[in-house]
Amino acid sequence: MVEDTMITQVKDSLEKMTAMDFPLDELKKIVPKVTIVAYRKGDYFVRTGEISRVMSFVYNGLFRIYLIGTEGREYTKNFCSEGQFMGAQTSLFTGSFSLTSIQAVEDSILLELDYSILMVIAEQSIVWQKLLRLTTEQDYLEKERRESELLLCDAKTRYAHFVKKHPHWVDRIKQHYIASYLGMTPETLSRIKEKI
Amino acid sequence: MVEDTMITQVKDSLEKMTAMDFPLDELKKIVPKVTIVAYRKGDYFVRTGEISRVMSFVYNGLFRIYLIGTEGREYTKNFCSEGQFMGAQTSLFTGSFSLTSIQAVEDSILLELDYSILMVIAEQSIVWQKLLRLTTEQDYLEKERRESELLLCDAKTRYAHFVKKHPHWVDRIKQHYIASYLGMTPETLSRIKEKI
Repeated sequence: MVEDTMITQVKDSLEKMTAMDFPLDELKKIVPKVTIVAYRKGDYFVRTGEISRVMSFVYNGLFRIYLIGTEGREYTKNFCSEGQFMGAQTSLFTGSFSLTSIQAVEDSILLELDYSILMVIAEQSIVWQKLLRLTTEQDYLEKERRESELLLCDAKTRYAHFVKKHPHWVDRIKQHYIASYLGMTPETLSRIKEKI
Repeated sequence: MVEDTMITQVKDSLEKMTAMDFPLDELKKIVPKVTIVAYRKGDYFVRTGEISRVMSFVYNGLFRIYLIGTEGREYTKNFCSEGQFMGAQTSLFTGSFSLTSIQAVEDSILLELDYSILMVIAEQSIVWQKLLRLTTEQDYLEKERRESELLLCDAKTRYAHFVKKHPHWVDRIKQHYIASYLGMTPETLSRIKEKI
């Protein structure tokens, strides 16, 4: 069962993300539809080529979001941990299959909601439309920020920003995943860490 | 003065972008606030470091959106031409300065609207909230598509996709800008074009 402390966490995260004062009674509308799902390390939230219709909130744990290249090479696009919202947006927004895979890198617990329920509620509600607009804006801004950083900052600066922004990830994620996320080889990452 | 044919074009473009049936009377609410602005080739819509508060619709012409690297190297992020909406989203969404520059590469005409007017109208209107949510989703999807293509497709495939998707841009944009947009050197682009 979804407990009150969980709802409070979702509300806090939404408000932190959007700077919007989101009414608790609006949030409670979706609670009966939310399911709590446990993932073991290695389990997939979605695999490349699947259609995903689930929006989620990471209650605890950590996931890796990645693309698979033509020769099987993996490109880590992002990580997602406790307090963050997670979904295969391309699939949710378009109904088509997901290009990305999302895999648990730790045992994790998600609060999951069928995206279509969110769409039905939002159809009649300006506060939900606004919330979804603002969360999508944040997703967009995060992609902009990352694109700019990969193009404009050298490897050392990228790693420094990563450590500053995500100190809670540094020791939980394998080095070659961090290197992949930061667009550098594991050897470059090792050299940078030795110098610090 | 904003003519009816212009409003029809904006409405058509919005509906094509979002697949949403957008009421004409809603659109007419903003028309008195819209200004028609002419840009000469080389003029800037926004420069890196400026704060932009303007949402625009390209009535005709073509713009280039780019980042400037630490050594003055330019990275072309996108182009924007007739029938598309254009803005410095990071600046609009956050109120902070723009990392990107947007410059006219042809003489162009924009329909411009102060973004704060849009925000005031949307605060009371579910259809505007929904429209803004859907346009932001499309901006997000475009960034996803581009990120995936740069990581997963070889140079030849990227150019083929570009020609197929934007045939009306191919002969209007300088080759080194197209190469920069496709993440390849002008020499690589030349070789690819010779082979076709």
